[in-house]
Amino acid sequence: MAEHFADRLAVAVQARATPAVVGIDPVLEYLPQELQPADRRLSTSVAAIESFSRRIIELVARRVPAVKINAGFFEAFYGEGLSAYYRMVAHAHRCGLLVIGDIKRGDIGSTAQLYARGHLARPSLEDVPAECIPDAVTVAGYLGENAVRPFIELAREEGKGVYVLVRPSEPGADQVHEFGQELRFYQHLAELVRRWGDQPGLIGNCGLSCVGAVVAPKDPASTAALRAALPRTPWLVPGYGAQGATAESCGPCFLPGGRGAVINASRSVIYAFRQPAYLARFGQDWQAAVAAACDAVADDLRPLLTRPEAG
Amino acid sequence: MAEHFADRLAVAVQARATPAVVGIDPVLEYLPQELQPADRRLSTSVAAIESFSRRIIELVARRVPAVKINAGFFEAFYGEGLSAYYRMVAHAHRCGLLVIGDIKRGDIGSTAQLYARGHLARPSLEDVPAECIPDAVTVAGYLGENAVRPFIELAREEGKGVYVLVRPSEPGADQVHEFGQELRFYQHLAELVRRWGDQPGLIGNCGLSCVGAVVAPKDPASTAALRAALPRTPWLVPGYGAQGATAESCGPCFLPGGRGAVINASRSVIYAFRQPAYLARFGQDWQAAVAAACDAVADDLRPLLTRPEAG
Repeated sequence: MAEHFADRLAVAVQARATPAVVGIDPVLEYLPQELQPADRRLSTSVAAIESFSRRIIELVARRVPAVKINAGFFEAFYGEGLSAYYRMVAHAHRCGLLVIGDIKRGDIGSTAQLYARGHLARPSLEDVPAECIPDAVTVAGYLGENAVRPFIELAREEGKGVYVLVRPSEPGADQVHEFGQELRFYQHLAELVRRWGDQPGLIGNCGLSCVGAVVAPKDPASTAALRAALPRTPWLVPGYGAQGATAESCGPCFLPGGRGAVINASRSVIYAFRQPAYLARFGQDWQAAVAAACDAVADDLRPLLTRPEAG
Repeated sequence: MAEHFADRLAVAVQARATPAVVGIDPVLEYLPQELQPADRRLSTSVAAIESFSRRIIELVARRVPAVKINAGFFEAFYGEGLSAYYRMVAHAHRCGLLVIGDIKRGDIGSTAQLYARGHLARPSLEDVPAECIPDAVTVAGYLGENAVRPFIELAREEGKGVYVLVRPSEPGADQVHEFGQELRFYQHLAELVRRWGDQPGLIGNCGLSCVGAVVAPKDPASTAALRAALPRTPWLVPGYGAQGATAESCGPCFLPGGRGAVINASRSVIYAFRQPAYLARFGQDWQAAVAAACDAVADDLRPLLTRPEAG
């Protein structure tokens, strides 16, 4: 029996003493000068984002418990890009990181089985290494329980995790997620996620489920209410840093004792070398800037682990 | 200026005299005996689903106006599988078909730009042929307008189409989509999709937008009401055949004069050779069974094009 995802994540968070995870979102145009591709061929472009991602992973490996690798940034380069995504998952595993595959897939039950096979299942083909598969993935809850069930079954059987998108960081999402009178749509989705995850066999020793939620912090009251409604649901929290959330606004995302949430920072860490303050301090040494930014984020979020009851 | 997607689709539907499109959903376990892979290596498995898909595309090319290629079935084989998806898009184009990429991606605006780059944009890399990119894709409307906007911009600029998932065929999706009191969630989403698509520059000569909707037929009254609320929105209709919808239940999906909808059939066509009736008639000749099933579906749906006002 594989160890439960929530238990593995809790151990890794304690080991690094921070709930910060780094998002790997490589964009060709933002790469350091030395990594810019020399021509406009696909393989050269993929090699460039791969070199960058590989170095970022190595830089953050001893600083944070996990990375979140966003498949969309790799799929900008078609199938070859997605192959690089899997290589980055493997590389992060070899560097001792837990890996969340940010894939946000969502389709009807029969298709969801195929997505789950490719993105979360232990590979059944002899030349695909198991380390290519992330420890958890993000999915859309959009199509109901049948669409999420194949992922939950793998989480149960193989010690993996699933984060269902409940309250996104995209401000424009409010026109969809704030729908509803007495009950808001995101609250309705949250209740479904609670129900899907609060089942025998899905709860780890740490008291949390392998079925989590992606929840961006909004106003403190609504975030605290959502947190109270999901007492066994681990959260993956987007929106910190470049998107505007702060350590303080992330506070209500945690359960009492600083449990149950990890906070993702992407741009504010991996493109730190483009920010004037880091540029002034580190010049062309982009790797030093990334390392320093990662330390700053880890330090900024560290107090959340020892915070008394949130709210 | 590229020709408008809705105009191109309307011409193709008239040319084949049927609103049927065939869904390419290759599953290794369901392939004909002669195509089963000889070993458990990734490249062999991808070659098997690719051979099958390639042959299906050729069989249906003169029978239907378009194919819908489902990325999930290819992603079951990782990046290599997704590369095969792009090759199948190109192959279908070379066979004279329009191609809908069924990718159902949905992420925040900044990530959606990258997904749009990989899945709908004209390739900017010199060794990626434009024919690899589908004419339209399906997306999740889940994260609001910013998340769909990059796809709509490409649709406007490059004559492409976007189908936003409004009412899925998955029965379990009702627990999400039937949410809401006065207004149901799917109706709310539909109104957003209408608003996103009913803009200057997005409407083709045929009177339809490049922003469409995925809408499964449910009870005739609610389907007709949704159709009336979306007078300029082209529909991609799932659920026909193996999933239970019939030509009759698809009737209310059309605008007056049989305009504005295509009906997808996947399993009932591409796995016809596994059905007892076709097995009895064609034996091991699986390609003859697929061709006959495709003709049967095209014929079954043909009368919908000349149907008087739906409802």
